[in-house]
Amino acid sequence: METLGDQECLQLLRSHDLGRIAVVDRLVRPLIFPVNYFFDEGILVFRSNPGSKLDLAPGAIVCFEIDGWDADQAVGWSVLVKGIAHDITNPRGAPTGRMRYWPVQPAAPGSHEHWIGIWANEITGRGFRSDNQRAATRSNSE
Amino acid sequence: METLGDQECLQLLRSHDLGRIAVVDRLVRPLIFPVNYFFDEGILVFRSNPGSKLDLAPGAIVCFEIDGWDADQAVGWSVLVKGIAHDITNPRGAPTGRMRYWPVQPAAPGSHEHWIGIWANEITGRGFRSDNQRAATRSNSE
Repeated sequence: METLGDQECLQLLRSHDLGRIAVVDRLVRPLIFPVNYFFDEGILVFRSNPGSKLDLAPGAIVCFEIDGWDADQAVGWSVLVKGIAHDITNPRGAPTGRMRYWPVQPAAPGSHEHWIGIWANEITGRGFRSDNQRAATRSNSE
Repeated sequence: METLGDQECLQLLRSHDLGRIAVVDRLVRPLIFPVNYFFDEGILVFRSNPGSKLDLAPGAIVCFEIDGWDADQAVGWSVLVKGIAHDITNPRGAPTGRMRYWPVQPAAPGSHEHWIGIWANEITGRGFRSDNQRAATRSNSE
């Protein structure tokens, strides 16, 4: 298992648009939601319909993850973003106002009219080449 | 956004082997880890090297997620499993002993000698056909 460099993590975040956010609910249970996102300038922005994400994320420390698995090369990777989420639906200044023009395009139906930004405190990534021939073969054949 | 039926959720869990587990750390922050898994009989089993997953999951309520996005069909789905994780590395009885023979094959390197089972309390799934032509087109061209 290899640690990915900062530049590689940023490049992976910039070149993808689907990840998962984890939040903690009021009974200290984790929840995971897939979201389309846009990342730039150390900030990750997604949009939300009303619901648990919107109730729990703003003001909280959240975790965001993307990963990939190339069955042909038997190579896997993941990038983790930790940071504090803020509701930027009604921006108060230039930096958050600008984010409202970022190309965040939810694939799922709904107006997704609430915009949330995650200010990254920590970005880490890991990559590996599989030494498990069975796993590689199995995933290849799927 | 459409709710998936129980049978469809179980079928999706049985036909995949890579998902993500979320746990809550001691400072009430969520963490996400990609893991290979095997699901049967309402129990989801993965293996772990020593580290945060192993420190935080056993005895805790955790969340597990798989998702998929078919760019050609512009169809997306996700399945969420909530339950309590138990360390089954040293099984004390027949049910957990049997799970040690389940085909859980981590793609990542390492012995992954610790086995963890998630006893599902709740399994939910959602699916959608995208009405966002830009999102569908963009993901198609990637």
